Amino acid sequence: MRVKLNHVRCYYMAREELLMIPGPTFLAESTLKAMSRQMISHRSKETGTLLTRCVERLKEVFRTENDLFILTASGTGAMEAALANIVEPGDKILCTTCGKFSERFKKIAEVFEANVVEVSSEWGDAINPEQVKAALDEHGDVKAVTVTHNETSTGVKNPVEEISRIVKNHGALLIVDAISSMGGDHIPVDEWKIDLCLAGSQKCFAIPPGFSFISVSDEAWEVINKTKRRAFYFDLVSYKKSLGKSPPQTPYTIAITLLYALDDALNLMFDEGLDNVIARHHSVAKLTRDGVKAMGLELFPVREEICSVTVTAVKMPEGIKDQEFRQKVREHGVVISGGQDKLTGEIFRIGHMGRVTEREIDITLKAIKQALLDLKFPLREALLQR
Amino acid sequence: MRVKLNHVRCYYMAREELLMIPGPTFLAESTLKAMSRQMISHRSKETGTLLTRCVERLKEVFRTENDLFILTASGTGAMEAALANIVEPGDKILCTTCGKFSERFKKIAEVFEANVVEVSSEWGDAINPEQVKAALDEHGDVKAVTVTHNETSTGVKNPVEEISRIVKNHGALLIVDAISSMGGDHIPVDEWKIDLCLAGSQKCFAIPPGFSFISVSDEAWEVINKTKRRAFYFDLVSYKKSLGKSPPQTPYTIAITLLYALDDALNLMFDEGLDNVIARHHSVAKLTRDGVKAMGLELFPVREEICSVTVTAVKMPEGIKDQEFRQKVREHGVVISGGQDKLTGEIFRIGHMGRVTEREIDITLKAIKQALLDLKFPLREALLQR
Repeated sequence: MRVKLNHVRCYYMAREELLMIPGPTFLAESTLKAMSRQMISHRSKETGTLLTRCVERLKEVFRTENDLFILTASGTGAMEAALANIVEPGDKILCTTCGKFSERFKKIAEVFEANVVEVSSEWGDAINPEQVKAALDEHGDVKAVTVTHNETSTGVKNPVEEISRIVKNHGALLIVDAISSMGGDHIPVDEWKIDLCLAGSQKCFAIPPGFSFISVSDEAWEVINKTKRRAFYFDLVSYKKSLGKSPPQTPYTIAITLLYALDDALNLMFDEGLDNVIARHHSVAKLTRDGVKAMGLELFPVREEICSVTVTAVKMPEGIKDQEFRQKVREHGVVISGGQDKLTGEIFRIGHMGRVTEREIDITLKAIKQALLDLKFPLREALLQR
Repeated sequence: MRVKLNHVRCYYMAREELLMIPGPTFLAESTLKAMSRQMISHRSKETGTLLTRCVERLKEVFRTENDLFILTASGTGAMEAALANIVEPGDKILCTTCGKFSERFKKIAEVFEANVVEVSSEWGDAINPEQVKAALDEHGDVKAVTVTHNETSTGVKNPVEEISRIVKNHGALLIVDAISSMGGDHIPVDEWKIDLCLAGSQKCFAIPPGFSFISVSDEAWEVINKTKRRAFYFDLVSYKKSLGKSPPQTPYTIAITLLYALDDALNLMFDEGLDNVIARHHSVAKLTRDGVKAMGLELFPVREEICSVTVTAVKMPEGIKDQEFRQKVREHGVVISGGQDKLTGEIFRIGHMGRVTEREIDITLKAIKQALLDLKFPLREALLQR
């Protein structure tokens, strides 16, 4: 890789490249330091205290009084946990799909032999609550509905609150993947009556990948307790039992280093104030959108109101090649993401979650602008055409 | 906790207590430092290079040319992966049980609706290969046999090589849990024809918990490819597909910090020499056994030949209470483990895996001796009676 010592790169050389992908995100110095602590026993009082402190504060982030568990697994593990604990073969599960990650719910439901009912939107659009209502009315005995709050592959946020009213009116369980938005966006689990809500560690919590979080409502427990669960590592009943032990623990050895990181990251979030953290995410998201639009680029989501607050998806400018473009951006010190699956080459994505501030957005936008200029993209003309 | 500033404690104060449980084990300073590195993209070339370098060296540790995958999950996740990928409802699975962890295989097999055939030994004894042969002869169409190489709950090592000859003669798959022994003991996967072999990160590899490793033979793939797998997060086919991509990757976000740690830990193991690492484990195990026997204590395993090289289980001395005893040992700066399940209060366990040397065994034995003296255990008399 050609190293170009411009001011952007110099700025970030001390801490390596600036990672602006939709997770993992860069970590705070204190979080990095927290992880160089020696091991302790996973069944000790000390781990129990750490675990309890983390779980209690995660519940505040989730705005829930439901049970909440920490799984040593990436977000997909939590998605599997949600479904494996409630699906028996033939159960009707309504999966709302509008991108790669919402489609993953469908794939997992199929592995567990659910009878999947699908309500889709085009990639780039959000789920239409009316279509969810129509599908529920048509299919009757739907056991659970899956919704991806923040579809990381398309930069779209789905209307979970509206969908919840419909789902709860129908009496089904509501499973929400908030893996890449919990902590950065307003997702009040109890107010929105989310039965199983999932989050990931390497997104807004700004710790490394390896943990996922899942909250479980009383209504979900009623179903889980009646279900022949096809889960062992992800059997939520064992997590509940272990968390109730003295000292509190996990059924299988927890990734202790990540617990050190989580404890530190939650300190940072609570010091800043949870509402302030969310406001900051909204603010950097708007800055990002305004910045790319000002360059004459187009957002991928079909309407700005449905844009995610943690990842901005932008249509690849005409004549610009994905790999070459992102390599150029990287030469200017910033790592961004391309599109996934059918969006490969069609979009690029900027993650702005966790510890991201205006400063990192400025650096990122400058790097993107510089990359486009390097590639002779008619930036000025594009600006004039606005 | 009363802090007693004796020489043992002082020695280890700088790096906190000496953790001598059967995993997690204490980490090398370089491994701790490796984890304070900033995040990188999980789909980057750099992660691909790291992953490949780790997988290739893990294969050398496993002494295998089979596929090998890194799972972001504790060892139990790898146990589930082994079974979920090959078991269809009603399949006959022979589970050999002789402690808590070997029984876990049986529980997982039951979750996946296997028709479980059990061959057990008393806790403290090893599996008798002749009984495995008799069960296979009796039950005919057994699809796979599970064996726990190192039963961490009882400190017993099972005769995998002998069992393998019987299992392979029968044509079943051999699944071996080497979670707490791989790297520390001689377990040549290809020579012993182990189809699915599992290891854990927080044991002999001396990195934090959160990773598990699984090797998959060609024969296992033949079965997996024909099996309707009830796994998503642990679907081995997706791991194989992702590792074959450019850059090599995992299907779901890998715990990057643990990959940094693993890379460092493998450097240390290869610098020392894999055979030397194993010889050191054998040597510290013998030191530990000789030390406790010299105090007049009794090993829990029924014969010394079947003693584990990574964990020594010792009968709780008469009149000594578990909690009080281990608390005393801790006051002398060392953390050891008690018994699990039905062995609670009956035994204590000393883990000696990973970076453990003669120095740590000396400290541990001294702490145990001191604790017994504190509790007025007739140590001298016991020694005289020998």
